[in-house]
Amino acid sequence: MPFSFKLFDVDHSARRGRLETDHGGIDTPVFMPVGTLGTVKSLSSGDLREIGADIILANTYHLHLRPGEDIVAGGGGIQQFMSWHKPVLTDSGGYQVFSLADLNRVSDEGVEFQSHIDGSKHLFTPERVVDIQLDIGSDIMMVLDQCVEYPCDRERACDALERTTLWARRSKEHFSHKTERNAYQQVLFGIVQGSVFHDLRKRSVEELTALDFPGYAIGGLSVGEPKDELLDVTELVAETLPADKPRYLMGVGFPEDIVEGVARGVDMFDCVMPTRNARNGTVFTSRGKVVLKNTVNKTDFGPIDPECGCDVCKNYSRSYLRHLFMAGELLGPRLATYHNLYFYLHLLAEIRQSIRKGSFLLWRKEFYNKRDNQ
Amino acid sequence: MPFSFKLFDVDHSARRGRLETDHGGIDTPVFMPVGTLGTVKSLSSGDLREIGADIILANTYHLHLRPGEDIVAGGGGIQQFMSWHKPVLTDSGGYQVFSLADLNRVSDEGVEFQSHIDGSKHLFTPERVVDIQLDIGSDIMMVLDQCVEYPCDRERACDALERTTLWARRSKEHFSHKTERNAYQQVLFGIVQGSVFHDLRKRSVEELTALDFPGYAIGGLSVGEPKDELLDVTELVAETLPADKPRYLMGVGFPEDIVEGVARGVDMFDCVMPTRNARNGTVFTSRGKVVLKNTVNKTDFGPIDPECGCDVCKNYSRSYLRHLFMAGELLGPRLATYHNLYFYLHLLAEIRQSIRKGSFLLWRKEFYNKRDNQ
Repeated sequence: MPFSFKLFDVDHSARRGRLETDHGGIDTPVFMPVGTLGTVKSLSSGDLREIGADIILANTYHLHLRPGEDIVAGGGGIQQFMSWHKPVLTDSGGYQVFSLADLNRVSDEGVEFQSHIDGSKHLFTPERVVDIQLDIGSDIMMVLDQCVEYPCDRERACDALERTTLWARRSKEHFSHKTERNAYQQVLFGIVQGSVFHDLRKRSVEELTALDFPGYAIGGLSVGEPKDELLDVTELVAETLPADKPRYLMGVGFPEDIVEGVARGVDMFDCVMPTRNARNGTVFTSRGKVVLKNTVNKTDFGPIDPECGCDVCKNYSRSYLRHLFMAGELLGPRLATYHNLYFYLHLLAEIRQSIRKGSFLLWRKEFYNKRDNQ
Repeated sequence: MPFSFKLFDVDHSARRGRLETDHGGIDTPVFMPVGTLGTVKSLSSGDLREIGADIILANTYHLHLRPGEDIVAGGGGIQQFMSWHKPVLTDSGGYQVFSLADLNRVSDEGVEFQSHIDGSKHLFTPERVVDIQLDIGSDIMMVLDQCVEYPCDRERACDALERTTLWARRSKEHFSHKTERNAYQQVLFGIVQGSVFHDLRKRSVEELTALDFPGYAIGGLSVGEPKDELLDVTELVAETLPADKPRYLMGVGFPEDIVEGVARGVDMFDCVMPTRNARNGTVFTSRGKVVLKNTVNKTDFGPIDPECGCDVCKNYSRSYLRHLFMAGELLGPRLATYHNLYFYLHLLAEIRQSIRKGSFLLWRKEFYNKRDNQ
C-alpha cells in the first residue's frame, strides 16, 4: 500500500489517524521503540510483535558504523535483517553526529566526524545520508539536519536552521532520483529546527513545507531545555505544520511528555526512556515509576503493576525481578524492557481510544490523578 | 504423581526411561539446563517451555547467598518464584563451596566458607543443606558431598569419600523427619565420590546404595581429569549402581560427553556448557561448534544450523547474530542461549528415539560422522 496518512478524529488539538506503508499500517499517535543497532535492546522481534509495536526506530549513524549499511542491505534490508517484518523509521544520524561523535566539523557540504567506536573518519552529506538509508531500507527516512545544543545563541540557531533547510532541499532533490530502488516504498521526512526561538521555528516550518515533505519532525528538542520551552515550541510548530501530514516529535519522552505532545497535535514519538530505564531496573506503572532494586520490593510478591496485562506482570513478581537486578542477571533488563514498552504502547492505545471517543481531556485528567494518588 | 522412575528400553548400556514428579514427568536420558540463580541466564520460563525443557537445575549455594531461601520460599518455592511450573533439581552446593567460596574449612560437622560475593561467613552442614533445599522447594534435592580436586591423592580422596557417606547418612536421617513439608513431594539423591580410584568409587557406591536413595549422582568428575578417566569412572559407577534407579552424571558436558555418558548407562546430565558458551558467542551445530564473531559470518545470511528447527535458526542469520555480538547487544547471548539449549534438548530427544528403536549405536556412529565431515 503506498504511503499515506489519514486523520480520523481531532479532539481539541489531539489527533487520531493512521499511516500506511508497504510493511503495514501504524495507528497514530504512536510510540516507536528505539532499536538503535537494529535491535530493541534485549527483545526479540517476536516480543515486539507480542506487545503490539507497529513500527520501530533504528539509527543511521549507529548502523553505518556497525555493521555497515552494506551488510544490512545484504541481509535483505533492516526488516529482514532483524526479522522484524513491519515498518522501520531511521533517523538521519544528525543528532548522533553532534552528540556522540568525537569530533565534528560542519560545513555546507556536510559534517565530518570521527566514530565514537574506533575514531575512524566519516563524512555525512545530505546525499550520502539518503543513500545510507536507502541501503538500510527503512520505510521512513529522515533528512540530515544540524542539531544545536541548549542553550544556543540566536545566530548559531539561525545558521543551523538555514543549513538544515539547504540540506533538506538537497536531500529531497537527491532522493527524487532514487525512488523505487527497493521493492517497497521509502519516504523521506523533513526536520524542523530553530532551537527555542519562535520566529526561527516558524521560518523553519515555512521553508520546509515549501519543499513539501510527506511528514515533518520537530527536531532539536529534548536537549536540556526547560519543560515549558519544550511544550511551547512543540505547540507552536505543530499548529504551524500542515494538518494533513504526520508530525513527529523526536526523542520525547516521559509518559507525561507524550501525553502533552499529543495534546499539542503530535502524531509520532520515540525515546530511549522506557528501554534505557528498564536496563537500570526502573519501571513505569500507572502510579508512577518504580525502582526495582529498592529494598521494599524484596518481599513484594505482587506484579510490577497490578493494572498491567503484560506477560511480565502476569508471571513474575517484583521480588523475583529485584533478585534478577541485584544479581546482575540478563533476564532482569529483558523483562523490565518488555514491561516498559508494553506500558508505553498500551498508554498510546488508551490515548487513541480516548481521542476516538472525544474524551482525551478527561482521560488526561485521570492519567494525572492516578499518579498523584500513588 | 509420586516420584518414580521407569525404564522402558535398554540398548546395549544406553537406557530410555521416565521420571515422574509432582511437577511433571521427565523423559530420560535428559539434559537439565542450568539456572544457577533461579534463571537460565537470559531466557524466560516461556522460552524454556518452548524449547521443550522438562526440568532445570538451580544452585543451592547461589540461591542461599542471593536472594536467600527465605525469599524463594516466600515467593511460593522456586517453581512459582521463577514462573517455571515444571520440575527443578537443586545441587547441594558442595561443588560450589569447594570451587567458588573464598575460604573453606571442612570438618565432619560440615563446611565453613566465606561468600564469594561479600565475604560473609556461612556454615553448611548436611542437615542445613537439606533444610535450605526444602525451603527452595526443589523436586529433586542433593545431599551435601565433599568434592576433591583433580589430581588428588588416594588418602584425601578416601577421606572425602568417607565424609560424603557420613553426610549422606545424616542428610537422609534429617530428611526422613521432614517429608511432606511442601504440598508436593521432594526427594533426595545420593552422590558417589572417590575421585578416579576405581576401588574407592565401588566402595562409595556400596555405602550409598546401602542407604537406599531414590536416585544417585556421579559427582567429582569434570574437574580436570583426562577424558578417558571420566568415561572409565562413569562406566564403572553406572554398572555398579542399581539398574532401577536414575543415574545422574553431574556437570557433564560437551555433546560428545553426553553421548558417551548415555552409552555407559547415564540418565541425567547438566552442564553450563551450552549456556556459558552461548554468552561468548559460541554455538553448537550438527557439524560442530561455530564462533559467531568470526569474520566468515559477516556476510553469511544463512542460519546457525540449517538442520536446526529452532526459532533462532528460522528467523535470524549468522550475519545478524555476529553483528549483535560485535556490538555487545543483549539479544546476542539470548538468541545463542536459546539455540544452544534447543540443540542440546533436541540431541537428547534424538538419543531417546534411537534407544527406543534399538539403534543407538548406529545413531552414535552417524553423530560422529557428521562432525568429521564438516
